[in-house]
Amino acid sequence: VVLDFPVENLNAEDVERLRGIYEPLTKSVRELIDATIRTEMDADAVAAAKAEIDAATARLRNRQLDGPFGLRNPVAPPLSIQKDDDGGVVADFHLGAAYEGPPGHVHGGVAALILDHVLGDAASSPNKPRLTGTITMRYRRITPLGDLHAEARIVRTEGVKTFAVGHLADADGVTVEAEGVFIQPRWARG
Amino acid sequence: VVLDFPVENLNAEDVERLRGIYEPLTKSVRELIDATIRTEMDADAVAAAKAEIDAATARLRNRQLDGPFGLRNPVAPPLSIQKDDDGGVVADFHLGAAYEGPPGHVHGGVAALILDHVLGDAASSPNKPRLTGTITMRYRRITPLGDLHAEARIVRTEGVKTFAVGHLADADGVTVEAEGVFIQPRWARG
Repeated sequence: VVLDFPVENLNAEDVERLRGIYEPLTKSVRELIDATIRTEMDADAVAAAKAEIDAATARLRNRQLDGPFGLRNPVAPPLSIQKDDDGGVVADFHLGAAYEGPPGHVHGGVAALILDHVLGDAASSPNKPRLTGTITMRYRRITPLGDLHAEARIVRTEGVKTFAVGHLADADGVTVEAEGVFIQPRWARG
Repeated sequence: VVLDFPVENLNAEDVERLRGIYEPLTKSVRELIDATIRTEMDADAVAAAKAEIDAATARLRNRQLDGPFGLRNPVAPPLSIQKDDDGGVVADFHLGAAYEGPPGHVHGGVAALILDHVLGDAASSPNKPRLTGTITMRYRRITPLGDLHAEARIVRTEGVKTFAVGHLADADGVTVEAEGVFIQPRWARG
């Protein structure tokens, strides 16, 4: 989920309004990240870009949250997770230069981050968040940058423990498999 | 390692010069990411910041790399990995809003990304890169945002497989443990 506001005190209309303000900003920062990684411009052009970026940062910092914050995060891989018909979750997304490890391929740790997130989402429900207890990744081959697919589902639940499995895949099939145990935190037990 | 250029065709002086150009840019983009996540400014201020960001992006995109790229990546957690005296590796670093999962705490997937990266670094040497085969994370407690420490070391090597262990810790001790098997890729076998 790319945008995620602290919704406790907001109604649906507020959320929609905030999304309209901040989503284009997040998208622009993602573009800037990609441009920053790939630019070959010279020192003068880079200094001019840096001045613009610093001006934008100062503007945004005029009023900001200090404490824990809801996320509208250009760093997070651009996942939009959907529930599928069988109670599992799926996400189709594109990874660019910001997520590179071996040349042209996804960083192994980014694959781990995505699988942790997708399995955790499958294991949780709106009223029952579950946090990772243990998770294991098996890398079957390296994952190319580009269009990718991730999915996950619950295998079984025993008390506060939920067992989930999933994988990351490209157009040719599975690249990384994952299995994990997710725990309902004490504060969320009814 | 925050900055990492494709060094094949560069001498030490070139690398230093490029670092001087791009490192301040990377730092500014990191600041912008934090400001983007935490800002509470209104629609007009956000639109003005967005225009500055888009101008910087356009400037940087005037000349850029198409293919696989060396990394100077404001998305990557700000790790600077050091070799320790026993052949292991250590990294001390600070994680802010961009890496949040549960309120005030590190996203479990970000912990996985960092441990994959640090164990992979411990398992590799300059002439012998090794990629993750399997890795398991055990979350002992949630990790607060702020100043953190990670370390990893090789346990043993059997042929092309290297076994490594490590952990993530805050000031109070270990928060996440990891163990993995890292494989020397075919193209890097001598």
